[in-house]
Amino acid sequence: MKEITSTQNNLVKQILQLKEKSKERRKSGLFVIEGQRELKLALKGNYNIQTLLFFADIFSEENLDALIKKLPSVEFIKISKEVYQKLAYRQTTEGVLAIAQSKPHSLNSLDLKNANPLILVAEAPEKPGNIGALLRTADAANLDAVIIANPKSDLYNPNIIRSSVGCVFTNKIATGTTMEIIEYLQLKKIAINCAALTAPVNYSTLDYTVPTAIVVGTEATGLSGEWLDASDQNILIPMQGEIDSMNVSVAAAIVIFEAKRQRGFL
Amino acid sequence: MKEITSTQNNLVKQILQLKEKSKERRKSGLFVIEGQRELKLALKGNYNIQTLLFFADIFSEENLDALIKKLPSVEFIKISKEVYQKLAYRQTTEGVLAIAQSKPHSLNSLDLKNANPLILVAEAPEKPGNIGALLRTADAANLDAVIIANPKSDLYNPNIIRSSVGCVFTNKIATGTTMEIIEYLQLKKIAINCAALTAPVNYSTLDYTVPTAIVVGTEATGLSGEWLDASDQNILIPMQGEIDSMNVSVAAAIVIFEAKRQRGFL
Repeated sequence: MKEITSTQNNLVKQILQLKEKSKERRKSGLFVIEGQRELKLALKGNYNIQTLLFFADIFSEENLDALIKKLPSVEFIKISKEVYQKLAYRQTTEGVLAIAQSKPHSLNSLDLKNANPLILVAEAPEKPGNIGALLRTADAANLDAVIIANPKSDLYNPNIIRSSVGCVFTNKIATGTTMEIIEYLQLKKIAINCAALTAPVNYSTLDYTVPTAIVVGTEATGLSGEWLDASDQNILIPMQGEIDSMNVSVAAAIVIFEAKRQRGFL
Repeated sequence: MKEITSTQNNLVKQILQLKEKSKERRKSGLFVIEGQRELKLALKGNYNIQTLLFFADIFSEENLDALIKKLPSVEFIKISKEVYQKLAYRQTTEGVLAIAQSKPHSLNSLDLKNANPLILVAEAPEKPGNIGALLRTADAANLDAVIIANPKSDLYNPNIIRSSVGCVFTNKIATGTTMEIIEYLQLKKIAINCAALTAPVNYSTLDYTVPTAIVVGTEATGLSGEWLDASDQNILIPMQGEIDSMNVSVAAAIVIFEAKRQRGFL
């Protein structure tokens, strides 16, 4: 088995580039996975692993043997402590990193199997941590899709992978411009319900048992006019306190789980 | 008006200590507020301001005059750019800092005005950011109280103030040990509903129109046995995806807003 002990190794440099630079990920179609749980979910999500690097002091031989058996075509590389420390995020990644191939996330590649889908749309979420939190909620609710409008980073940003706890690999995710997504939803006759601070209707009074997209904007600026205009119904989460904004993942969760409740959590 | 231009000034040192050290805050009964919005909410929450420091290049004279009129007994101090940069968090605090007196947060000091209260209890939340997020949701829902069981830090941790966007000053907050809080709730005949991954009952089937405490634990370990045993009903948020944990503020928001819905958002 190949072994890397130098932090100056080219593959080490490539991994650092893939972690840090969106452009490198786009150009190569590759990204980096850290952590056992994340790797497990990526495999569940049918991601192609190209190379797997492990630090034997942390990653058990048992785990390794199981993976080698499961992934016969993957190149396994043993790395030294020095290399692992150079590559790993805060040493919390359980001794394993992988280089994987990204997937297409166009609206066309979105495979909606449910004839009565429940979809979350987030417009231009600012922080990777917010996207991660949205993806965790989408996972819990088993949404049919998450669509990111006008994304500010690619989905394989390490902070998105980390904050989604790997759910970025198992959710069905598409990205597109706001106008593309509005067209897509209208074509599929999916009701567009935009959460807005100035909306006239309490979110809980709506019927979510029909094909539904719940659309949320950013905390700072809310949704763009395009969304609010295209909306079948703009919906309000009543804010009864001193401040007038809600964390976007909290707001999304409140509406999503009201929809789930109305649908009998099916 | 007094002016401080040296970062070696004793008050500057005291402020840094108050920001960094929980022990200093406890010993002195003082803490630091940063930012105009936070200051406004602290005043709304009837906090006593002792000293107010401002950096005139950022903080407008108009704002200053209004504050001086509003707070005749407060000492106002002008600070230099160097001092401001030493004290301020990422220069996002809009040119103003204040030293304020903390308040008691014992259960006895909790003044429940509503005969049919809706309360959030969080056991030992790990991260200040999680407490801040919970407090924002509690503010939006206008909860009657937020009770922190076995807190891991004091409420005046700068990261709690910041992540709560100042809601820490306007929410009614008490802290206590788990056993103290359980006794308190039982004495007041407030139903205890603990969110747990192994609970037998879907959260949405419960009646929240009675006096209710919604209790959430940490993401890592959930609630302690004391809570689960003392619970009138343990409740489950169905998790239908690949992972089995939810962000604590998201979980709390889902149950809180179901309670609000049942109560007609009153």
